[in-house]
Formats: sequence, structure tokens, C-alpha cells
Amino acid sequence: MTHLQKHVIGIVIYPGMTALDVVGPQTVFSGLPSVQIHRTWKTIEPITTDDGMVIVPDTTFADCPPVDVLCIGGGRAQGAVVNDLELLNFLREQGNRARFVTSVCGGSEFLARAGLLEGCRAATHWATRKQLAELGIEVGTERVVVDRNRITGGGVTAGIDFGLVVAKALCGEEIAKITQLLMEYDPAPPFDTGSPEKAGPELVEKAMQYMTQAMEATV
Amino acid sequence: MTHLQKHVIGIVIYPGMTALDVVGPQTVFSGLPSVQIHRTWKTIEPITTDDGMVIVPDTTFADCPPVDVLCIGGGRAQGAVVNDLELLNFLREQGNRARFVTSVCGGSEFLARAGLLEGCRAATHWATRKQLAELGIEVGTERVVVDRNRITGGGVTAGIDFGLVVAKALCGEEIAKITQLLMEYDPAPPFDTGSPEKAGPELVEKAMQYMTQAMEATV
Repeated sequence: MTHLQKHVIGIVIYPGMTALDVVGPQTVFSGLPSVQIHRTWKTIEPITTDDGMVIVPDTTFADCPPVDVLCIGGGRAQGAVVNDLELLNFLREQGNRARFVTSVCGGSEFLARAGLLEGCRAATHWATRKQLAELGIEVGTERVVVDRNRITGGGVTAGIDFGLVVAKALCGEEIAKITQLLMEYDPAPPFDTGSPEKAGPELVEKAMQYMTQAMEATV
Repeated sequence: MTHLQKHVIGIVIYPGMTALDVVGPQTVFSGLPSVQIHRTWKTIEPITTDDGMVIVPDTTFADCPPVDVLCIGGGRAQGAVVNDLELLNFLREQGNRARFVTSVCGGSEFLARAGLLEGCRAATHWATRKQLAELGIEVGTERVVVDRNRITGGGVTAGIDFGLVVAKALCGEEIAKITQLLMEYDPAPPFDTGSPEKAGPELVEKAMQYMTQAMEATV
């Protein structure tokens, strides 16, 4: 076990993000040995997530050291910042030297717009697969897609599976397995409707309407 | 569908809590129709979670309206507040009139200490089952335990399964299924080590050592 190597992890925190997208991986990462996590944004002013929680970033882009793992999640209100030049420049600069360039859910759209997914396969939330494909990215429908040093997760809860894949890459299989145990990640979803394929077209249609309403309420 | 009924949900936010314990359910709840979420603590000063994230509570105990769902999670540093009288009084007062009294992970210890689990079965993180039993509570090892209006989840990630069970109780099965789909909750854990039974005694032993170190580092 390589306990002595320090892993610097940069998690982008932005207004309108989905908290769970990055809190899943954060929980995994924070349990790893020798990890330093920076929750980074333009400023350290509090931001509000798309589910209404207020989080305070701890590191500005300007103060963020070079990261080993760059991570960004999605959000119902990500449209408001997805073309933000300061953010895209930060992602590009960090991404070009990071050991792993990663995202969860709609976070892959940010990586794509920053030019960090050229020629790569990547995952995204099922409802945004078409959108990511339109940016010229090959979309993988697996829960976690690993393409060289690009590691991307599917929608929201996929961040937990994603985090454990990254944990194995950083710290080896045993520590990743211990982390899964400590997070008691032995899922038992009450329904079998977690993917569009399993849920079927009727429920997908209802979910899309539902999501549209929620996004309108958020924006 | 009973879209018009408003559900008031109170999530307790405290220093040293595990963010994911309550961010899982929060993601579920925030997607439900007609929900009002209060993230409540003694003050609205920012708190730091056990994985180092700063969250700002939005409602003091004094300002919190009567809740339909009372929810508290666990945390590596919960020992510092688990006997806090102001907190226990808040839980007792709200819990005695709430429609559902709920917890995730070590949060069940708070409910027990507030006298809200007398004669009930409840779940907790696997590593704290003995501790909860010592408080006179019958411990269930299922991922989510429903005992009349007490709904309790197991460790950390169980909050997602738990949240969906609560969602069904509040809003019916179809909305809970849609919520699961929108959260893309179709888990694919990379390892089969999510419970002590599956992980086996050797890994459990290592995990306990690991957790002890992490708790010492937190406190």
C-alpha cells in the first residue's frame, strides 16, 4: 500500500450543481489515506446546490494547487455556468496536467466544452446522452467509463461507483474494498427502475416531464 | 397522486456529521412534489462535515416549523454532540408529533437517546450495531428498517435506499420510481464488500482499524 503518496483532489463546486454528484465521490476520497481535497470555485462565497443546500467552497481557482484528480459533477442549473470561460480555463489548465480527469453525471459536458474529452468515450446522466454526443463525444452507457486517464460516471448516484473505481486507481484494490465496506455500499434499491432500459419508455417519458418541471423551477 | 399536500422535512445538520448520510435522502426528497426542506441546527453558522465540507444550515431549531419527516444522519464525530440536550430536546419535540421519525447510519443513536426508539426495531451502520443494542434498541440488519412510523437506514449509502422508501410512503410508488430513475440509481458496486457478511472477517477487521484511525484523525 502506497500510504505515503499524497493525492491532491480538486472538486469543482458551483451554483446549481447537484450535491450528491460530488458528495458521493467526496465520501470515498475523504476516507483514503493521504488525500487532500480542495472544493474549488471562483470565490469562496457560499453557493446553493440545485437541491437547495448551501455549501462553502474552500479554495479559489487562483489558490488551487495542481491537482492529481480533477472532478466535476452535473446539476439541474449547470446550463448557467457550462460556458463560463473562467471555469473552462481552470478545467483546461488543471486537466492538462492532472493524473485523472473525471466527472459524474452532467459534469462530462464541462470536460467536453473544455476540450478535455476529445477522442474519448465518456459517461453522463442518461437524460443528457444525446447532448454529450452532439459535442462530438462518444457516449458510453456503462455506469463508469474508464478511457485512459479519463474516468467518468453516469447520473447522480453513479458517483459512488465512480468514486470507488478512482479509489482503486489511486490506492489499490484493498483500500477501495475497505472503503466500500465502511460506506456500507451494499445497495438494495426498492425498485428496478434505475436506468431508462430497466424503467421502460412510459416511465422514462414521465420522468422527462417531471425533470423539465424541476429544471424550470430551479432556473 | 397527491401533489397538493405539502411535506415539511427537517434534516438535522451538525458539526462532524457524514455529508452523504443526509445528502442521499435530500436528493430524493428535493425531487418530490410539494416538499419544503429545512436543514436545521442550533444556529445558522456554517458547520464542517466529517469529510471536510462546509455546509450552512438554513433554519435554527427555534425557527423550524413542525416537520412531517424528521431526519438525522450519523458522523464520525457524532460522539461530540450525541448527548447535547438542546439537540435531543429538539428531536424529542419534533419527533413526538412528526409523521415519520427517521435516521440514516449512526443517526439512530440520536433518536434512541431522545427516547424516540423505545420498543422499536432500527437500523444503523454495521459498525455501530452493538452500540445501538446497548441502548436497548432492537437492531435490524436490513438496509432499511420500517417499524410503524420509524424508518431507519443502515450505513452511509443506505440513505439512498432509505430515501426512496420514505418517498414511496409520502408520495406513492410511481413518484418514488421516477425519482429512482432520475437519480439513475442502478448501482453497480465494483466490489462485493459492501456489508460485513459479504466482506468477511479479515476485511472487517482491517476496516475497523482503518475507521478507528480516521475517527482519531477527525476528533
